[in-house]
Formats: sequence, structure tokens, C-alpha cells
Amino acid sequence: MNATDHAQLRSALVDLHRLLVDSALVVWTAGNVSARTDDGHFLIKPSGVPYDRLTPESMVLCDPDGNPVGPGLKPSSDVFAHAYVYRHRPDVGGVVHTHSTYATAWAARDEAIPCVLTAMADEFGGEIPVGPFALIGGEDIGKGVVDTLEGSRSPAVLMRNHGVFTIGASARSAVKAAVMCEDVARTVHISRQLGAPLPIPQSEIDSLYDRYQNVYGQ
Amino acid sequence: MNATDHAQLRSALVDLHRLLVDSALVVWTAGNVSARTDDGHFLIKPSGVPYDRLTPESMVLCDPDGNPVGPGLKPSSDVFAHAYVYRHRPDVGGVVHTHSTYATAWAARDEAIPCVLTAMADEFGGEIPVGPFALIGGEDIGKGVVDTLEGSRSPAVLMRNHGVFTIGASARSAVKAAVMCEDVARTVHISRQLGAPLPIPQSEIDSLYDRYQNVYGQ
Amino acid sequence: MNATDHAQLRSALVDLHRLLVDSALVVWTAGNVSARTDDGHFLIKPSGVPYDRLTPESMVLCDPDGNPVGPGLKPSSDVFAHAYVYRHRPDVGGVVHTHSTYATAWAARDEAIPCVLTAMADEFGGEIPVGPFALIGGEDIGKGVVDTLEGSRSPAVLMRNHGVFTIGASARSAVKAAVMCEDVARTVHISRQLGAPLPIPQSEIDSLYDRYQNVYGQ
Amino acid sequence: MNATDHAQLRSALVDLHRLLVDSALVVWTAGNVSARTDDGHFLIKPSGVPYDRLTPESMVLCDPDGNPVGPGLKPSSDVFAHAYVYRHRPDVGGVVHTHSTYATAWAARDEAIPCVLTAMADEFGGEIPVGPFALIGGEDIGKGVVDTLEGSRSPAVLMRNHGVFTIGASARSAVKAAVMCEDVARTVHISRQLGAPLPIPQSEIDSLYDRYQNVYGQ
Repeated sequence: MNATDHAQLRSALVDLHRLLVDSALVVWTAGNVSARTDDGHFLIKPSGVPYDRLTPESMVLCDPDGNPVGPGLKPSSDVFAHAYVYRHRPDVGGVVHTHSTYATAWAARDEAIPCVLTAMADEFGGEIPVGPFALIGGEDIGKGVVDTLEGSRSPAVLMRNHGVFTIGASARSAVKAAVMCEDVARTVHISRQLGAPLPIPQSEIDSLYDRYQNVYGQ
Repeated sequence: MNATDHAQLRSALVDLHRLLVDSALVVWTAGNVSARTDDGHFLIKPSGVPYDRLTPESMVLCDPDGNPVGPGLKPSSDVFAHAYVYRHRPDVGGVVHTHSTYATAWAARDEAIPCVLTAMADEFGGEIPVGPFALIGGEDIGKGVVDTLEGSRSPAVLMRNHGVFTIGASARSAVKAAVMCEDVARTVHISRQLGAPLPIPQSEIDSLYDRYQNVYGQ
Repeated sequence: MNATDHAQLRSALVDLHRLLVDSALVVWTAGNVSARTDDGHFLIKPSGVPYDRLTPESMVLCDPDGNPVGPGLKPSSDVFAHAYVYRHRPDVGGVVHTHSTYATAWAARDEAIPCVLTAMADEFGGEIPVGPFALIGGEDIGKGVVDTLEGSRSPAVLMRNHGVFTIGASARSAVKAAVMCEDVARTVHISRQLGAPLPIPQSEIDSLYDRYQNVYGQ
Repeated sequence: MNATDHAQLRSALVDLHRLLVDSALVVWTAGNVSARTDDGHFLIKPSGVPYDRLTPESMVLCDPDGNPVGPGLKPSSDVFAHAYVYRHRPDVGGVVHTHSTYATAWAARDEAIPCVLTAMADEFGGEIPVGPFALIGGEDIGKGVVDTLEGSRSPAVLMRNHGVFTIGASARSAVKAAVMCEDVARTVHISRQLGAPLPIPQSEIDSLYDRYQNVYGQ
């Protein structure tokens, strides 16, 4: 297998990074998307490369431990976090990391985002939790993501003083979760600036989540 | 009548959804526009389809009860809310639903937006009211919209913990109300962050509303 | 003189309205630019026409009293305010009106923007004052603008519960003042959210204003 | 040496000014980038020229004292500040000045931005400090920048009541610092609106900074 395999997935990753930029979730090079390949490896953004210079070929193929396979660019600094998630969550096909503004503001206070919007019940099924502080580079972040999301319906986790990780069945689903996470982080923040948003009863959250996951869409 | 009738209205709906995106009122697939047809049915966005993939043909023709007519995509999850509005408000030709940030922030607190701007008096004729919490999928939201707007001059209603519905003589008018609603929701929110906006006396609100509705424009 | 004279000025006005949109100072049709012609009349935006449909020909030529000259579209609702300014301020060649968010938020509280930024000292030479509440359609707004700016170095005035008017030697200068007004309104608002911005001594404001007006630029 | 030398650097400066605009760090003409040439002079934005009219030829070549070399446009009002930085910091190859909103809001309160985000530890190695109030036009601003950054790892300094200066080994690095400075200024501001962001221990800041400076990227 050489570094230019998985042509379609590589091309989709370029588009999804572009979507992060267009959704104003990332600046400069601070954010990345990865996608699991059908042979159990994964493709991820190269480290420090600006979004407008990403090409399908520049995406880095990594083995399940996060080591690059074959020649090419160095993978994202967050590669071992992504690898840890893929190894421990066989249901996950895509992982996204951003420092999106409002979500990161909640993360800096170590404060979960309460579920006070129907859109949040739909997508996250409850609050968006906060994971531990962890240094970049090793597996600590990946472990924090997996441990915090265990038993949660949320595909997003706020990592303390750091930013957001989201997961999905596909890279596109993980990007959707990242977009929705910032959207609800912003709306709930703004609501709380002038008072206390009303809670949504758990039974209503359950109804909304069930419907959205099972009925919504085509 | 087949699913590709009403070509001009279908095309206008694609443009109006694009306008929601360009006005930053919606993210991903969370928002929709519908328009009543001249034969008493209505066209609405298909469920879960991204805005940049909408085509005139993808718009879903529904009967007055909100049931799709003929083959095609599934209509928006909010289809029964739109249908309820059309059945109970013969003056309405278009309905818009968004989760626009600032308006939804007011809605999450169950707080009406007070009329403290001349632009708000012009377009809304007073405060923008809040409707009840209601689950998506049935007619409860439509009933909440119609009941709350009864006796109000506002073409916009904030639905508690949810978002915004707007109505208009045409789909374009309803989109205008959605754009103006977010604009005044944002300005009044920001004004209140540092103090209390001054009220506008009711007689002045009445003068402004009357002039804007009857003199403004070509 | 017919309605298509002043071709260059008409074309410049289309561009300047586009600049208001690109600078996010206006939504829908809520804002306008006018420019004095060399024969003592002025050109102004037509009422209620969306910005992306403006053409040079659509700009409305008005006499010094604000009455349209010749056939064509109806002028902006604010035409008499613009006319009043041109009649009472022979130094003014352009007038701009917007409801830009942060400036209008200060206006809704009837609160002048204090001069706590060097960029504000440069362009406005001190605080940006607030004018009275006045109904749209007559000369009250124009009188409020002229009276409030008398004795002020600021080319911008916040009209209570309404929005912003700016003046300039040219329409382009007035647009610049509108852009800078919103920029400093936003920055000072945000600064005050977390504490008290430090004042700039009057003598320093005077130095900055003098330099910017007389030395800056080509 | 004539004013059109350094063709590649001049062209890069046009692109970097465009990047300031695209990153929403500047409005109208309020912000500038300079780059040291390999012969010890530097190129800088001309004074008062709008960003969309900048050309490679319009960039002004200046000697180490900030005086223009040869015919051409007048340099930025901030030219002597840039010159002072180049003379006192031989490691610096580029300087950027902006009035970006959130950073300037901190500067107006004379308040340093605390290091509560891993992205801030990465790029700035600690807090972003505030320099003194200084008038535009002379060397006071340059001296304030150099003195404040002495002993700091931050490539950005907030100048009181004014805005931001950033430095870098290249003009592109200085632009990156300006982009990241506004991003963290905004995120930390928003975090503090609803409570107190958690501090990051100094040892963790040191680890993050060391890794980012030495391991990150290609």
C-alpha cells in the first residue's frame, strides 16, 4: 500500500478541512480531521500545513498506532490522540479536533455545556462534557476523549484549557458534530450572558434525541 | 400535478435558502423555508439535505396536511408546523424556521425581545413574543406559532428552547422577517450587556410601524 | 438635467453601498448613502431596494429640499434628513445612515462612546455623541444630526434608539466614518464588558487628531 | 537600489496585507506589515492606502532609520516604530501592527491576556503583555514594543489604548502571531465573561511551548 491510495477519502478530507475553515472553526493551522480507512489505518492532516495548501496527496496515512506508513509529510501533532480513539472505538470512522472559540471558552472554565436547546438534544442527546487537561503529543488526550465520552451520547468533548474533539461514524459526521458543537456553545453562552436559560426535562431530551437519530433525514 | 411543477417557486426557494446561509442564520441543515403554491399546497425543504445541495427539484410538494404529494424526498421534520400555519393563516404565503444565534438565546431564556429600536418598531410593530416549548414532528409547534402570533403585529415568534419561526405574505417576506429578527435580537442583546436600553413610547412605535408598512418602499 | 446625469457619482454610490454590505454595517435594505452633486442637488439610494439590485440609474436625484427631480424611483425614507444636513452644512459632500450593531446598541442606551482608543482620537477627535430620538420621514432627524454635531469634531452621531449618521467631505469619507464608528463602538463595548477602559488625556487626543487630519495619508 | 527591487518580498507583502483583511484583523487602512530586506532596509505599507489598492510597487522601501529610499509613496505613519524594532532586534524579519478588536479591548484596559489556553502556551509561551501608552509618529511606540517584549517569549505586545504589534523571524511569522493573538484574545475574553478560566501551571506552559517551537510542523 503506498501513500497515494484511498484517493476518494483523501479528497474528501481536503473538502472537510475546507469546511472547517468556511465554518470559522479554525485559524491558521490549528485543527485537523482524520478518517479511518477500510483496511484499519487512518488518514490525517499533515502537521503545520496551512489549509489552503492541503492536497489529497498531502494527507498522511498512519497505522493503528499513529505511525506514518511510507514516505511523506509528518502527521498532525494530534496523531496519537486520533490513533487512540480509533483503537478504542471501533464504531468511529472519523475524528475532528478544533479550538473553536465558544466551545474552547467553556473548556477553559472546565464547564460542560448544559442541554438547553432542542438542537442540542437532537445532536448531542444531553450536555457536552469536559475532559481532563492533557499534554499534546502522547496518548493522554486520546484517553481523555475516550474515557469522557464513555456512557455519554455526545459525539463532542471539550478538553480542558484546550479545545474540542468530535467523533462520528464518518469524518463528515464528526465535522458536523464540530460545527453543531460550536453553534450550541455560542448560543448557550450568549443566552447565559443575560440570565439563566431554562432547562429541558430529561424525558423531552430523550424524545428529541431518539427522533433525530432515527427519523430525521432521508 | 407532479413533483416538478411550480418551477419558479422551487427556484426561488433555493435562492432563499442560500440567503439564510449568506445571512448566517443557519448552520449545516438546521433551518428551512416553505412557500404556499397557488393551488393551496406548499413547497418545503427536504429533510437533512445540506443547503449547497438543494435544487429546485429537491423541494418537496406537500398537501395542506403536510403530506408529500407524489414521489421524491422526505420533507423537513418541521413540515407539520408549516402545514398548521398555512391552514390557520390564509394571509400567509411563506414560513421560515431558523435557530439563529441571538434570537435563540432569547428563546432559551423564555424572554421576549423588547421594542427599543426604531427598526424593530418598523418591522415588528412591538416586542417579538415567545411561544411555548413544543416537541418537533407534530402540530404542537405550528399551534404554538399561530396562537402566539394571534393579536401580535410581529411576523416573528421565538419558540422556547428552540428557535425562530417567521411568517410573511411571501416566502421572501418571511425570510426578511427572519433576517431582521436576528439583527434586532443581536443589537438589543448587546445593548443590554452594558445597561438598560431606553423604551420607545407606544405611540411612537405605532407611528413608525404605520409609516413603514404603508409608505416605505416603491 | 435628467435622472441619468452624474454618471460617475451614481456609479460610486453603488460601490459605496456595496462597501456597507461588505463591512457588515447593513442588512436587507436598512442603510443608505447620499452624495452632493456639483450643482447643489444630491443623489440618494431608492427606498426599499435591496443592495444587490442597486444600479447607477436607480439612484434618485433630489433637490435641496429632498424632492425627487424628474421621473424615477422613490428616494430613501431618510431623504429629508439628508437634505437638512446638506442645506445646513455646506462643508458636507456625503451622508451615510446605518443601523450598525454595536453603534446602535450604544444609541439604544442613549450613551456616547468615550474616546479610549487612539484610532478614535484619530478619526473622531473625541467621544461619539448621541442625538435625540426623532421620527423618520420629516426633518427632525436631520436637525438632530446637525445640532448634535455642532461644536463636535466627530463626523458620526448616534441617534437615540435608532442608528448612526455620518458625514464627510465626500460620500467615501462618510462611509469611512461609518466603518470606523462601528469598529470603535465594538472594541470599546467589548473592552467595557470586563472592566473600565483607561481614558486618554485630552491633550493626547488633540495631538492624535491633529496629526491624523494633517499628516496621515498621501 | 531603486524602489522596485525586492520583487518577491513586495509581492509577499501584498498577500500578507490581504491575509490581515481576510482574517478580519483590520478595517479601512488601519494596520500594516513590514519585512526586513536582505540588505538591512525594510519594506512597509504606504500610508492611508486601502488594502485592495496595494500593489507590489506601492510598498515603500525605507532605510534603518525609517526614511524612504528613493521616490514613491509616503510610508505608514508607524514607520519609525517598525524601524526602531528592526534596529534593536536583529532576530526580527517582520513586524505587524493591527487594531484587532479583542486584543485592542484588552489593551484599552491595560490588561495582559493570561495564558489559559494550550494554543496560547504553544505560540506565546505565557501571557501576552501590555506596553505603555505612546503617541504615533515617533520612536516611542517602537521603544515600548522592544522594552515590553524584552525577557518575554511572546511575539505579540498590546500597546495601551492603541492596538497590537507582533514580531517574527519573517513577515509571515509576524502575521501568524497577529492572527493567533486575536484568536486567543477573543477566546479568553469570552471565557471570562461567564467565570474564571483555569490557569495552566507554568511547567505545563513550558512543555507546550518547547514542543510547539521545536517539534511542530514539517
